[in-house]
Amino acid sequence: MGKYCFGVDVGGTSVKIGLFQEDGAVVDKWEIPTRTADGGKDILPDTAASILHKMKEKGIAAEEVAGVGVGAPGPIDSDGTVHVAVNLGWGVFNIPETMSALLGGGVVVKAGNDANVAALGEMWKGGGQGYKNLVMVTLGTGVGGGIINEGRIISGSAGAGGEIGHIHVRDGETIPCNCNNYGCLEQYTSATGIVRLAKEKLAADTRESAIRRENISAKTVFDAVKAGDALAIEVAEEFGEILGKALAGVAGVVNPEVFVIGGGVSRAGRILFDFIEKNYKQYAFAGCHNAKFELATLGNDAGIYGAAKLVLE
Amino acid sequence: MGKYCFGVDVGGTSVKIGLFQEDGAVVDKWEIPTRTADGGKDILPDTAASILHKMKEKGIAAEEVAGVGVGAPGPIDSDGTVHVAVNLGWGVFNIPETMSALLGGGVVVKAGNDANVAALGEMWKGGGQGYKNLVMVTLGTGVGGGIINEGRIISGSAGAGGEIGHIHVRDGETIPCNCNNYGCLEQYTSATGIVRLAKEKLAADTRESAIRRENISAKTVFDAVKAGDALAIEVAEEFGEILGKALAGVAGVVNPEVFVIGGGVSRAGRILFDFIEKNYKQYAFAGCHNAKFELATLGNDAGIYGAAKLVLE
Repeated sequence: MGKYCFGVDVGGTSVKIGLFQEDGAVVDKWEIPTRTADGGKDILPDTAASILHKMKEKGIAAEEVAGVGVGAPGPIDSDGTVHVAVNLGWGVFNIPETMSALLGGGVVVKAGNDANVAALGEMWKGGGQGYKNLVMVTLGTGVGGGIINEGRIISGSAGAGGEIGHIHVRDGETIPCNCNNYGCLEQYTSATGIVRLAKEKLAADTRESAIRRENISAKTVFDAVKAGDALAIEVAEEFGEILGKALAGVAGVVNPEVFVIGGGVSRAGRILFDFIEKNYKQYAFAGCHNAKFELATLGNDAGIYGAAKLVLE
Repeated sequence: MGKYCFGVDVGGTSVKIGLFQEDGAVVDKWEIPTRTADGGKDILPDTAASILHKMKEKGIAAEEVAGVGVGAPGPIDSDGTVHVAVNLGWGVFNIPETMSALLGGGVVVKAGNDANVAALGEMWKGGGQGYKNLVMVTLGTGVGGGIINEGRIISGSAGAGGEIGHIHVRDGETIPCNCNNYGCLEQYTSATGIVRLAKEKLAADTRESAIRRENISAKTVFDAVKAGDALAIEVAEEFGEILGKALAGVAGVVNPEVFVIGGGVSRAGRILFDFIEKNYKQYAFAGCHNAKFELATLGNDAGIYGAAKLVLE
């Protein structure tokens, strides 16, 4: 059993790698480019070479490494088999088998979906510390999710566990979601979804507002909310009702202790909870009312933390 | 390690008890009355006495008993602590500790919510055999649910995991659900919910129909559907849209391999899936489309099977 572990977060443009002590202390972290050409065949070899190089540089022997965890954007089941990751060019293969061989064999490798792994990271060292039943909601360009039950990721049967951004929340939608369905949570509560809600509100209303200008973003909307802008507050109310109601439904499935909210939108801070939490309480089953809401704290490092934690379970 | 186990299903009027071999063969099953007076203080002592009596009758020694599993109606967490079971008069206490002491100590006892335990039973010996990631939906007087992930019950942080009957599905509802919320899945897709949908349809429509008579039930509605009754088919379509859409949301959280549908409504048979499945596929995330739909097969025995399986995990 080693005293170090590596956490790898494979993204579309770069692979983030962290070298951790088993208590979670970061020894080193760095990035390498993600080479997605030719079905992404170089991504894991590049990563393995970088890890082996780092071990040599630091004088770390293979016996000292507890394992290497890998998070990647795509459906990855509990065995670490990825079922097509479009952004990386990957088809179907088992990440731990491939990666372990690249590392010379004998190294414990585990893998999971990046959003699920980020949830594990926030549980270990982020906004979800102290909890074992957690739902992470990432409000970024899209809406990602990760479900942790009794300290373990719920990957689902085909790695699509925690895909809460694609829960249907609105009938009659005419614009398709990126997933090709209509009316997904992501279409209204991602950073781009909030901009859309704001534009719809502005088009249907003649009142003056700080957000009535060309460059609307989730940030400008919530900055206006903080300044007391009535129209921006109505946009936030709509956002909160849609998200709070959807999270109430999620709670009816897994009854978490805490929702950890991350992603770019979460930089607005705890003011988000003023809009989400009251709707959550209105729509959630009574037995789920006492769930906490917390902000994610690890930012872009959640993935490497969670990937490292995968091999420490 | 023994070769027998007991499965106990505590209900509001009777306690069902099954004596199983570890391979799932039923050696005996029987019922005793549930005495709910005085905070339900007699329920577990009565049950323990009945089990000890059966062991004596069959000449089974304590060493031959792998354990006793208990399912009961109320929120029960993964440690077996019940958090108030109104129907039984129970407050908050740990069922395994209490029951193990009543059995003379040394016996493995586990406990879970009755709907969750029934899901485990259907996975072991019922409609969900061969699957490890399963959502059970019980369409009876109410709508119950149980979630199994990687072969284990998801109890949630306070035992409210799998309470899918209380997922909010309709805005603007004016009649409260039994849980005091408005617009729960249970209000439209339970046996009583289907009757309500039928009555609303009949009141808003003047066409003749086989269901236009005094005693409407879920059975008369689906019998009429089978006979090609246009109005009954529209009721079934509405039922299927509400339920299929809700299950699509559940799949976005836990991505099951199979939905097992039980309860009185499921006696209508696989015709239910004609209405549920197309809506499920329309609203579910693509990665969840290949979930199967199966009928529960254990009926009222699902609880004793699942309770027995609790101690065999």
